[in-house]
Amino acid sequence: AYSAKVMEHFSNPHNVGEIKDADGVGEVGNPKCGDIMRMYIKVDNDVITDVKFMTFGCGAAIATSSMATDLVKGKTIPEALKLTNKAVMEALDGLPAIKVHCSVLAEQAIKAAVSDYYRRR
Amino acid sequence: AYSAKVMEHFSNPHNVGEIKDADGVGEVGNPKCGDIMRMYIKVDNDVITDVKFMTFGCGAAIATSSMATDLVKGKTIPEALKLTNKAVMEALDGLPAIKVHCSVLAEQAIKAAVSDYYRRR
Ligand code: FES
Repeated sequence: AYSAKVMEHFSNPHNVGEIKDADGVGEVGNPKCGDIMRMYIKVDNDVITDVKFMTFGCGAAIATSSMATDLVKGKTIPEALKLTNKAVMEALDGLPAIKVHCSVLAEQAIKAAVSDYYRRR
Repeated sequence: AYSAKVMEHFSNPHNVGEIKDADGVGEVGNPKCGDIMRMYIKVDNDVITDVKFMTFGCGAAIATSSMATDLVKGKTIPEALKLTNKAVMEALDGLPAIKVHCSVLAEQAIKAAVSDYYRRR
């Protein structure tokens, strides 16, 4: 039921880990399943130069975060804030309807990390 | 919020994979989050000699399956059928309430694999 791209990003996720000296850290929880996503960003001159994530969430959360971090890396903050979970799911050739709630974690965690970055400045 | 044992089994799960010539295979889905768990067993003289699992599920599903497979390996089928998700959670020093639904997958998948084994005989 999962697309080849979802399975690829699930089996070999990109950008997993922590950034010790992150400029922003966002943590969000999923009210539906209780899973947590943490996103770390490094920012240089308004550009997201590095991004990593950690999650206890399911395969769909891992695949969407892997894709979402790929999509915002190297982008400016205003560009990154435009990323929607719908765009991430499209980039992955879709997700089963029951897993859409998992894809929301990545979008929200990026926004939370950016908010944290602005708060720290 | 997760116990040290949960984190240990999540980071380094036991018995992950497939058994190509399994004697029983059980697949169950979680109506709450849409995750799927597949369990493979090898049976010799009513004893579960090997067991492996595959899941797209979250960290709690992985940790409970890792522990559950450890607990049924080497046991007789009647003993394995007595395993409850409550006992698995206790062996893991507990799970947050919102993640209890994830622990049900492992118990159900073992029972489904045993049913499949009986069906094949
Ligand atoms: S079920 Fe929780 S993130 Fe997918």
